[in-house]
Amino acid sequence: MRALLVCGVLAAARLCTCADLLGDWIAVVNANHADPVYARVQLTVKNGTVSGSWNQMTVQGKLAGIKLQIVLLRDTVPMGTLTGTLTAQGCSGEGQMNGSANEGSSTMNSVTWSLTRPARPPAGGPRAIDFEPSTFHGYYSASLAPVLHIFPGDTLRSRTFDASGRDADRRGPGGNPETGPFFIEGALPGDTLVVKLKKLRLNRDSARQSTHINGRTVTPAYVANAKYDQEYTVDWTLDSEKGIARLTHPSEKMKNFSVPLLPMLGCISTAPASRASYRATELGPFGGNIDYNQMIEGVTLYLPVFHAGALLTFGDGHAAMGDGELTGTALETSLDVEITVDLIKNYATAFPRLENDVFVMSIGVAGSVPDAIQFATAQLADWIKQQFGLSDSEVGIVLGSVAKYDIAEMVDPQFSVVAKVPKAALAAFK
Amino acid sequence: MRALLVCGVLAAARLCTCADLLGDWIAVVNANHADPVYARVQLTVKNGTVSGSWNQMTVQGKLAGIKLQIVLLRDTVPMGTLTGTLTAQGCSGEGQMNGSANEGSSTMNSVTWSLTRPARPPAGGPRAIDFEPSTFHGYYSASLAPVLHIFPGDTLRSRTFDASGRDADRRGPGGNPETGPFFIEGALPGDTLVVKLKKLRLNRDSARQSTHINGRTVTPAYVANAKYDQEYTVDWTLDSEKGIARLTHPSEKMKNFSVPLLPMLGCISTAPASRASYRATELGPFGGNIDYNQMIEGVTLYLPVFHAGALLTFGDGHAAMGDGELTGTALETSLDVEITVDLIKNYATAFPRLENDVFVMSIGVAGSVPDAIQFATAQLADWIKQQFGLSDSEVGIVLGSVAKYDIAEMVDPQFSVVAKVPKAALAAFK
Repeated sequence: MRALLVCGVLAAARLCTCADLLGDWIAVVNANHADPVYARVQLTVKNGTVSGSWNQMTVQGKLAGIKLQIVLLRDTVPMGTLTGTLTAQGCSGEGQMNGSANEGSSTMNSVTWSLTRPARPPAGGPRAIDFEPSTFHGYYSASLAPVLHIFPGDTLRSRTFDASGRDADRRGPGGNPETGPFFIEGALPGDTLVVKLKKLRLNRDSARQSTHINGRTVTPAYVANAKYDQEYTVDWTLDSEKGIARLTHPSEKMKNFSVPLLPMLGCISTAPASRASYRATELGPFGGNIDYNQMIEGVTLYLPVFHAGALLTFGDGHAAMGDGELTGTALETSLDVEITVDLIKNYATAFPRLENDVFVMSIGVAGSVPDAIQFATAQLADWIKQQFGLSDSEVGIVLGSVAKYDIAEMVDPQFSVVAKVPKAALAAFK
Repeated sequence: MRALLVCGVLAAARLCTCADLLGDWIAVVNANHADPVYARVQLTVKNGTVSGSWNQMTVQGKLAGIKLQIVLLRDTVPMGTLTGTLTAQGCSGEGQMNGSANEGSSTMNSVTWSLTRPARPPAGGPRAIDFEPSTFHGYYSASLAPVLHIFPGDTLRSRTFDASGRDADRRGPGGNPETGPFFIEGALPGDTLVVKLKKLRLNRDSARQSTHINGRTVTPAYVANAKYDQEYTVDWTLDSEKGIARLTHPSEKMKNFSVPLLPMLGCISTAPASRASYRATELGPFGGNIDYNQMIEGVTLYLPVFHAGALLTFGDGHAAMGDGELTGTALETSLDVEITVDLIKNYATAFPRLENDVFVMSIGVAGSVPDAIQFATAQLADWIKQQFGLSDSEVGIVLGSVAKYDIAEMVDPQFSVVAKVPKAALAAFK
């Protein structure tokens, strides 16, 4: 009787475990010295036979009690052999994987791996979350602990310091302190994070700008001859009601000078790839200090995801900025930020991209303007080609006839250039 | 009696000659191996004493009969000593001039020189002239004979071939054949030629465009992977009534693709400096193949003058063009052109500049985009500084907050970039 009972409990445990393996999983594969590799996994179990998908690969295997044994196949080529044990959270074990687990290298590496369930969004649908930041970060890195976990569809209301670490009532260190990181549930490396900038609003009436034109952007003769005032920066007063900024203590010549307010985020990023860590003044494929004056309310931003959760950060509010940020700073100020986030799974944008009502925009970041142009143009061409199924010649016709460029940033450690195409032209392909 | 008569005639001749020296002259000074140097000269004669101005220099001298002897002074420093003989046309002679005649070098050079009267515009004020071109030139050079002399204020109506040497009914060699050169009376080296593009109109309903994206503008990987159709070019049909262009023989994907017509001049130039001669595909401080898609009807263009008469040419009509002319050609077509010309005397723009209702624009031309950016930005800064009397710091504030850039051209022998500022911002300085 006791033996029968134990047997029954074991059988129930087995049934329960089998049922659990069914469905969606997130796989993480760790090889020595390598970054973790993630996969979206779907499994079914029938009479101890396991089948399913592991990203683009096929899963074949068997489940015996709590012992799992699977082979991963690309077409008919074995890409990995894994064994594991079911646990309360999912499954974990070891095995051999081809190259970096799902790339085409022919070397089998020893790995450890695990399956866990994707996080489930809370019942009740997308949330609107107010987040009051209390810590800021002066660098971009996946090593930073997330301050909040949010789900695709959620709206986040928060705010930024300005580039020198100030907002309406606080003061901290400078260097583009960033709000975040925010962990986007479900985001995996190889995805694209979609960030809609729903609101970017000034939260104070002052800004500060430098006055020296950066030497990269004018001739050496201009640099040699320029005689700048002793005061390196000027203060601006921001008049939200009139929608303009004026110098707070203008010279006689500048007393009527005003510029339209167009609040923008200088910095917005996912965590950079691998274990890279960059100062917050840097920029790259992950975004960062892009300093594009069209990063304004209403645009939708696409960022590559390099780490689980994407690890979104933003900062460096500007009340207005000329192209290229010629004086090294814009009208630096703090902003209230409202965004919604979404995910494009299994599609990785190479560099940040933007969209507004008028343009699709491709941002290239590189060590020179020409290289940034090449990245921006190539990504724009690839994007259009893929989205609308055009040939290379057709994309040539489109870009040759309607492409536009913006020089976003010329004074940071890297340069950013934007290649864009009017949506009106692309409407022909819908 | 006969002796008295001869005496009287000689005296009258002398009186007549003296009276003639009064007023405005154009001086030309030629030194061995050097380009001619021009000056605007004003002279008065009183009791044989000659005084006046020679550009920024002072003239002191004497007239004895038909023999003129003058010294040119910059402040109190002698810059030249000239002797000459009055002639029916003015005066000519020889002498010594400092350096290149009016620069700061301390070497005195032997020169020949002459004075002639400035051309006088015809009575009745500015003219409207229709000019039907029959010859076209495939290069820019001061050695080309002018096809027409016009005066500041005149309106010129003419037309262009397209880049490959065609218009609505003619066919010639390609390579951006240029209409002109037009000699602008009164234009001297160191002046700025002002050209208002009053009308740029299509004169046929066809255009042609290449389809390969230039390798400078995309990544090497993009170039390596692109698989272009065998047909290198596509034909466009220009629908002036609807204001759009469509492919004449579109692929299925491209059958609804259209681009707005925005006729522009790819090429417009003065003759390049000195004895330089460039193919018409070239561009430089003299203008030429700038390929800026805002060189459209309504803009005013400022070009440096390097030779007497400026020697204006134009050509290379485009029905529309994306920034950078990524496919190496725009929608190439022929245009009817109506311009008015004017002069800013004794002020030389370094590179071409433009103005429309919204922007003042500075064009930089160089062997790379970064260098073109530097020229464009420095000229824009200098322009604003000079025009409005701003300090370097004030100009920094303006450009840092409102500057914009256009990448005009990336596929020609040189690159052209445009730095611009909204006129609305500059209105504060009026």
